[in-house]
Amino acid sequence: MKVVEWLGDRVRILDQTKLPHEEVYLELSDYPSIASAIVELKIRGAPAIGVVAGYGIALGVQKIETSSKEEFLEKFQDVVGTIAATRPTARNLFWTIDWMQKVVAGGQDIGQIKQALVEEAIKIHSEGVEADEKLSQHGAGLIQDNFTILTHCNTGALATGGYGTALGVIKKAEEQGKNIKVLVTETRPLLQGARLTTWELKKTNIPYRLITDSMAGYFMSLEKVNCVIVGADRIAANGDTANKIGTYSLAVLAKENGIPFYVAAPTTTIDLSLASGDEIPIEQRSPDEVTHIQGVSIAPEGTQAQNPTFDITPYRYITAIITERGIMQEPYGDGLRVIA
Amino acid sequence: MKVVEWLGDRVRILDQTKLPHEEVYLELSDYPSIASAIVELKIRGAPAIGVVAGYGIALGVQKIETSSKEEFLEKFQDVVGTIAATRPTARNLFWTIDWMQKVVAGGQDIGQIKQALVEEAIKIHSEGVEADEKLSQHGAGLIQDNFTILTHCNTGALATGGYGTALGVIKKAEEQGKNIKVLVTETRPLLQGARLTTWELKKTNIPYRLITDSMAGYFMSLEKVNCVIVGADRIAANGDTANKIGTYSLAVLAKENGIPFYVAAPTTTIDLSLASGDEIPIEQRSPDEVTHIQGVSIAPEGTQAQNPTFDITPYRYITAIITERGIMQEPYGDGLRVIA
Repeated sequence: MKVVEWLGDRVRILDQTKLPHEEVYLELSDYPSIASAIVELKIRGAPAIGVVAGYGIALGVQKIETSSKEEFLEKFQDVVGTIAATRPTARNLFWTIDWMQKVVAGGQDIGQIKQALVEEAIKIHSEGVEADEKLSQHGAGLIQDNFTILTHCNTGALATGGYGTALGVIKKAEEQGKNIKVLVTETRPLLQGARLTTWELKKTNIPYRLITDSMAGYFMSLEKVNCVIVGADRIAANGDTANKIGTYSLAVLAKENGIPFYVAAPTTTIDLSLASGDEIPIEQRSPDEVTHIQGVSIAPEGTQAQNPTFDITPYRYITAIITERGIMQEPYGDGLRVIA
Repeated sequence: MKVVEWLGDRVRILDQTKLPHEEVYLELSDYPSIASAIVELKIRGAPAIGVVAGYGIALGVQKIETSSKEEFLEKFQDVVGTIAATRPTARNLFWTIDWMQKVVAGGQDIGQIKQALVEEAIKIHSEGVEADEKLSQHGAGLIQDNFTILTHCNTGALATGGYGTALGVIKKAEEQGKNIKVLVTETRPLLQGARLTTWELKKTNIPYRLITDSMAGYFMSLEKVNCVIVGADRIAANGDTANKIGTYSLAVLAKENGIPFYVAAPTTTIDLSLASGDEIPIEQRSPDEVTHIQGVSIAPEGTQAQNPTFDITPYRYITAIITERGIMQEPYGDGLRVIA
């Protein structure tokens, strides 16, 4: 199973909106269709968005037909603008864009820039895969034999195009021979836990149980959870972390019950330009995602709903942040400045 | 709209599994069909279960054809056994059964007992309606103008066959002219918030917004919630409260954010025989309710799920318990003994 695959002149992705009941692959050869795939969550997960954004920009510039560098740069900014406008919260998207901007700024002629952007997109992807592997190794050291681990949303291969972050840590601990059980929160509204994390765990044969988001605190209070691990969409300079809606609640409940709460993410998720989580933009998606589930209406007609896609977990609830460059604990400020 | 109506020789209920999209009424004239309606959640909510259980027992005994008191008592216990086996957590169900047992124990001839059980069932219902009204009056005093109130599951007329408990408090505050907004948690797995509370609020014209259960903590952290009010399925002698799964999490999150957390319930919900919440039996329902939503599969085939229907909120997270006999605060032990 390859979640994201570069095919030289197009990118192939596994359509995550069709999982778990259908495995449909899409081949995307232009940047507008890649932007749409990100908006529609056919590809999702902050690191995977960063990877696909790189390919999207690389593909976009190939089709710019001009010998004028000025015109080329203008059209490059159009491509970047479309990709940047897809989703506001994931840092990795903007990390990729910043990186591609630097490549273009340092480039010579148009042909060389076009070639360099493809090479850099491939490198962003392969470095992401490596980062997953390393952070999973680091994180697995925190997992003991016979742990029951609670995780939220999907942070596996599907979310990164590599090995995974929080789910990578879980898989690595199991590969090390540890006996692991996973409690998977379904992750309303879009059910990435129920649809995607279960699908990945089923393939690995790691035992799991699905619960609703509202059950997580109860199982913690019954002392049935040894640690909580989640991913991140953006980490501010003080360690405050934006992640899937519901993460903040899990962190508070973990602290109340004396359970370690870990965030696992590559350093491309860290945003040193933001002093705290208050500055992280939170995506608001369509209320229909709340009032409907898999197309079925669950509320009276005309019901208004709120749909913030992420929330902010203040650093003081986070036991450790696991990255490919090591594991950090409070105070996060200094550590994040060194590794990011 | 009458959620539960006694028609002399049968009981009419609004089928809550069909809401919000269809309003279907069922007429039930024997106790097995009433027991099934409780098991299948066609009627639900602890106080409403207590009311319908009374009618079920009353209907059940009418059909006992014997002149032998001994045989009558045996068959009465069969009826009671069937009603008692429907759902384990709601105290009100067992309160009704205890009451009916006392009526039978104190009764003379079979004809008189049959008549008395009908009268008592009607009285349990009308006293429930009165209790709702009084506790809503008491509770409304805690609600200030311009409050945004977060509530979980459904605790309105649908849950009691009267005016409601937690939702009764909200409705009463609004009737008093207070400007109220409600944040309604959808309440997975069976979506009583999304399907039922919204349906009731829509009829009252109280403004509401639907959120997923996982969003509640986030809105509390944004200081967008002035208080949380929930109902109860059973309250132990120390104030520990069993209520819909997810209640414990809301209570912890409310405490963490300095938000009052109220439980509203009639005294028939109080169980002085249990020292603490550890002794309250928690119903485990079918995992299918988690892996499927409105009949649609949301997880890979073979996925195992957990489905505890209730959780326990320790008394220390509860700011006050609102009953028809007044509002109590910690320490709960003495107050509960006086009023229950």
